[in-house]
Parts: sequence; C-alpha cells; structure tokens
Amino acid sequence: MSLTTRKNKAARAATTAGVNALLVTHLPDVRWLSGFTGSSAALVLLTDASLPPAKRAVLFTDGRYTAQAQAEAVGSTVVIATKSPIVAASEWIATASVKRCGFDPTQTTVRALETLQKSLPTKLRKSLFVAVEPIVAKLRQIKDDDEVAKLRAAAALGCKLFDHILTFIQPGMTEVAVAAELEHRARLAGAEGMSFETIVASGERSALPHGQATTAKLPRRGFVTMDFGVLLDGYCSDMTRTIHIGRARPGEREAYDAVLEAQEAGVAAVHAGVVTGDVDEVTRSVLRRAKLAEWFTHSTGHGVGLEIHEEPRLAAKRTEKLQAGMIVTVEPGIYIPGKFGLRIEDTVLVTRAGCEILTPSPKAWIEL
Amino acid sequence: MSLTTRKNKAARAATTAGVNALLVTHLPDVRWLSGFTGSSAALVLLTDASLPPAKRAVLFTDGRYTAQAQAEAVGSTVVIATKSPIVAASEWIATASVKRCGFDPTQTTVRALETLQKSLPTKLRKSLFVAVEPIVAKLRQIKDDDEVAKLRAAAALGCKLFDHILTFIQPGMTEVAVAAELEHRARLAGAEGMSFETIVASGERSALPHGQATTAKLPRRGFVTMDFGVLLDGYCSDMTRTIHIGRARPGEREAYDAVLEAQEAGVAAVHAGVVTGDVDEVTRSVLRRAKLAEWFTHSTGHGVGLEIHEEPRLAAKRTEKLQAGMIVTVEPGIYIPGKFGLRIEDTVLVTRAGCEILTPSPKAWIEL
Repeated sequence: MSLTTRKNKAARAATTAGVNALLVTHLPDVRWLSGFTGSSAALVLLTDASLPPAKRAVLFTDGRYTAQAQAEAVGSTVVIATKSPIVAASEWIATASVKRCGFDPTQTTVRALETLQKSLPTKLRKSLFVAVEPIVAKLRQIKDDDEVAKLRAAAALGCKLFDHILTFIQPGMTEVAVAAELEHRARLAGAEGMSFETIVASGERSALPHGQATTAKLPRRGFVTMDFGVLLDGYCSDMTRTIHIGRARPGEREAYDAVLEAQEAGVAAVHAGVVTGDVDEVTRSVLRRAKLAEWFTHSTGHGVGLEIHEEPRLAAKRTEKLQAGMIVTVEPGIYIPGKFGLRIEDTVLVTRAGCEILTPSPKAWIEL
Repeated sequence: MSLTTRKNKAARAATTAGVNALLVTHLPDVRWLSGFTGSSAALVLLTDASLPPAKRAVLFTDGRYTAQAQAEAVGSTVVIATKSPIVAASEWIATASVKRCGFDPTQTTVRALETLQKSLPTKLRKSLFVAVEPIVAKLRQIKDDDEVAKLRAAAALGCKLFDHILTFIQPGMTEVAVAAELEHRARLAGAEGMSFETIVASGERSALPHGQATTAKLPRRGFVTMDFGVLLDGYCSDMTRTIHIGRARPGEREAYDAVLEAQEAGVAAVHAGVVTGDVDEVTRSVLRRAKLAEWFTHSTGHGVGLEIHEEPRLAAKRTEKLQAGMIVTVEPGIYIPGKFGLRIEDTVLVTRAGCEILTPSPKAWIEL
C-alpha cells in the first residue's frame, strides 16, 4: 500500500467521521501517512478529493528537518514552521476552507487542545476542532504488504539474534553482558536500535515480568528469560524465550511445559474473526488447569508495528475481533515471587485460516 | 534530596496551586517522586500533612510490577490495580476526602481526562479534577545532589566513550559501525541503553542536524558529527562533537572555529539568573558576525535529566531565568545543505557564579 493509498483511506475515514480535515500529531501516525521520520511534526490531511494529492497533505516541521522532510515526505507539501508545528498547522487550518477538523483525543493533551484553540480566531474556537476516534491508529492495525515485509524482516533478525545468543550465554556472565551482545549484534545487522529496553531476567529475577537486564550474574542453575526486540527500518520485533541453565529443580519443567502449552494453544486460537478476549481466555485456561493462572499477571498479547505496543490488545474482556493482516504477540508467562518465572512469546501474522508465526525460533525446553 | 523531600515539595506546590491532591501520570514524574521505574503507573499525592507520609503517596500499577513496585517505591503505598492505573487512581481519589485534585494538562490527554471524569460519581465530575501548571516538571528542573551525581556519572561515561571512539574511527567504516561501537561500550560500562537514537552524520550528511547513523561510509575527507547520550541509572547524558577526517576544505575550518566560538561564548554566558533567551542570543550573535547564522536552524539548548529533553529551553524569546542546580545543554550548530554541517554540544551544571561543564571532552579542531 502506497503512502497515497494510506492517505486516501484516512481521508475517507475522516469524511465518515464527519470532518473535512484531520490534524495528525502522533509521530508514528505522521510517519505512516507521510513517510516523515523526524521527531517534530504535525500533519494536516484534507478530505476534499477535488484537490491535487500533494495539496491534501501538508506536513509541518521545524528547521532541523528541512532537507530530511523534503526527502522523506514524498507526496506531501512540506512547511518549515518557525512556531511549533502544531500551532503552525492550526493557523494554516484556520485559513484553509476547513469547517471541522478532527483530532485524536488519545494523542492530544489537554494543553495542546487549548493551544490549538487559542491560535484560532474567536469565532472558530469552539467549532473547528472535533475529537474523533483514533482513525490512523485503527488503520495501522491492519498491516499492508510493505509493512508485513518489514515486520517479517525485523522478526527474522530477532530469531537470528536468539540463535546467536544461545552460543554466547554462560553461567556467571551478567545479564547486561547478554543484553549488550544481543543489542550490538542487532545494530551491526542494520537495526536502528531496540524496540524496547531488553529484558534479561535470570534466577529469582525471572519472577519479574519486566526484569530489565542488570549486573546480576546468570546462575549455574535456573531460568533465564530474554524478551527483546529490534527496530529495523522503523518497525519493531518482539519475542521472548526462556531457557534453563543446568538441571531443572522440582516444578520448573512442569511450569515450562504448562506455559508452552498455553502459548501454543493461544497461537492455535488466532485467526481472522476470533475475539481478542477469547484468545486471552485460551492461554489463561491452560494455566488454570495447571493451577498456575494466579501467577499469570498480565494479558496475552498486543499489536506490533511502528510501535511496540499497538492495538489490538489480547486481554480479558476485550471484544474486538482479529482481522487478517494484523500482527500481534502471544505471550503467556508465570511469575512466582521468590522462586522463578518464565514467559514464551511469538509475534504472529493473522491470516484468514489461522496465523503465521514470524518468530519461529525453537520453543522446546532448552537446558544449557 | 530524599524521595520524601521531593514529595513534600510537590505537596506544598500543590497546596499553593489550590488543590489538595495531585494525580501524577507522566512516568518520569512518577519515578522522580516515588522511585518506581515501571512502565505502567499513576501516583496520587495527598497534601494533608496530618497523614503519615506513606499514606500521602499512593502508587497504582499493574500485576506485572507487584514485586518491583514494593522494592522500588519505598515510602509510598503500592496498589496493584486490576483496571488501568489511572482509573484505579481516580476511583480511589473519589473515595478519599479530596475536593480538588490537580492534574498536569501537558501530560494528560483529552481522552484520559474524559476517562477520569467518567469514573467519578456525577456530582464530582465537573469539580474534582483541576488543571494545574506542571508542578513536578518544574521541580525537576532543579537537580538535587543525588541527581547531579547521577547526571555527572552519565556525562563522564559519555566522555569516556568519545575518547574511545577517536581510536576506533576509520574512513570507509559505516556510520552505523561507529554508533554500534559507542552503544556497545556504553552498555558494557553499565548503561541501560542510549538516551536517544545515536546521531553519526558524516560528509554531506553532516548537514542533517538529526542525521541518525546510516550505512553510509565515513568519507576520506569531511566532517563526522557524533551526537549521543547514555542512559545510566535512569539519567541521560547528551554531548556532540564534530571531528574532521583528512584535510579541511576551504571554509570548513573557519566554520568550525565560528561554531566553537559560539559554543564557548554560550557556555560562558550561563550562570544563575541569566535569561535563557539571552544565552541563545549569545551563541546566535557569534554566528551572525561570522555570517553563518542563517544555517543555525535550531535553538541553543535544553534541560537534561530523567528525560533527554526537559525544561528549560534555551531558545530565542524565552524569558525564564536559569537557576543554580539546573543542568542544560549548549549546542549551537550550522547545517549548509549539500555542503557540510557541524555541531558542538556540552552539558553544563548551572552554578551561582557560572557553570561547570560535565562533558569536558576536547573541543579543539580534530583532524584524524
């Protein structure tokens, strides 16, 4: 899907929402629509189909990004603002023939809205800006071919890093050394960086679901949970594997097998049309049968794309349906304070019949 | 300054602002007040000084952070919420004897405010939540001793990395290889990661102020701008150096000297009491005299702390005064499209008499 197609889809959704322009300020949304990757931007999208395409998308950024915006935002008109991009955009909207301009209330602060309104002539203040449901975030849930290719490449790099790290890990090295090695290899393989702070949680620390790597040393005997993702060409990967160093203690292998069964059942439940809350219930019920559900203290998964956490959420009581082209994680885990924890996570592409696992690294019990 | 002192300061500022509680949702603010470093949290601070300290600060987070929150948020009451932390906090506030609860409109989305209000009994909806100026962000501008020590350590690590990279850089290697080396060394030296995406912009790419490292190869002759920062114990470093590979072309050395003069004049202008806009004017006027000001397309600097960009901003027309204990960058640069660019940046601690440079790496012309 080209940038033009994306902009047309957003413009149509804006028309349906009853507005004749959209003000887009969330940077991943701006990037998705315009191609611009800078850290300061506001994009105005006009719905008037009679305008030439380049006049329908106006990107406001600042002087640091003059050359970059021209190069990246192909098909948008670039304006280098001397004020903040959002104020420049607002003032521009007021002079264009826009009656109602939609904004995303989940990405606009109370202060930003005040600032927008203050920049307007009094007669427009109450009427011009209208909160509309997150149009771009919703479109972004369904990945187009270009995005699937990029997310596939990011996930494949994640798997390659996992293969490597298995040859690298030794008891006694620090968690940080493991994270540093993953991150260095990711960078040398072309990643811009990591998609979130690398989690390497070993021994008792594996009971911390978000145990970022510390200077703690890998034990001679115990779990090591690694949850990591690369940022490759703007897109995030996300996978978790838990390995065991040395022989399992009583209960560890059984717990691993239960989490693996839950994870595989979750993956098997994914297909276009399934309710997200039902996928969560599938993983949770496996752990319930194993009497481990009380230690499964988070939800089953989330969308992945330009951002590491996107809609949809695979969580209890959520009622959205998965659609073909969504890319989501399936990541049950258990965390028993003072003892151990473990998590297994894949990123999958939802298809009509089921799903394709983008992170096909081994999940069987690994004892190093 | 202990966490208790910080909370007391925030509570006093809240009282002055006319509210008897603060709802804090911006994660760096939550961390600064409570010590909690997780990715999901809301903190309620009550101003009632008759309550025991631990009852005055209530941290809401989710089940992933049970152990971590107990360990980190010393002096706060921890509540593990089954709803989102912000909704749990709001419902709790409604049952506490709070009449007016302040929130930060620069960190609260329009939707979050609606969600907060909807969670309340009808009679409280219009009156309970009150926008107040950013209290915690303002307090965070002045770094306490503990923070100065951490920012000093982060800056010192940045300098160490720069020393190393000078021995590493060779013409023909990619910008990414340079970035990867900086980042790997940072990680092995204890950094959690980088404080922003590393900029390595070489040759013509040096004319991109925010030229993130690419697979472009370092030229045999030309500038290499490196702008990078580590995240060490939660705090950011930020420094930029520009070196030259091979002999300078006409105009390059003169441009470097002018930017260096501007940067040193900016640093010399920093002291408690100076107006931030005046520091910007000092650097800009040096470049104006050198007829290079048109290429200086950003502002002079910004605060650094738990976040890479904090208040105050050293920018044209800004009227805030610097205060002792603020830590800010001074970073003029010029960017001549199609030719070259360069920037020199230090992070400095504002003192009564002047400032202390926390990034004392050499700034004299380096020709590799």
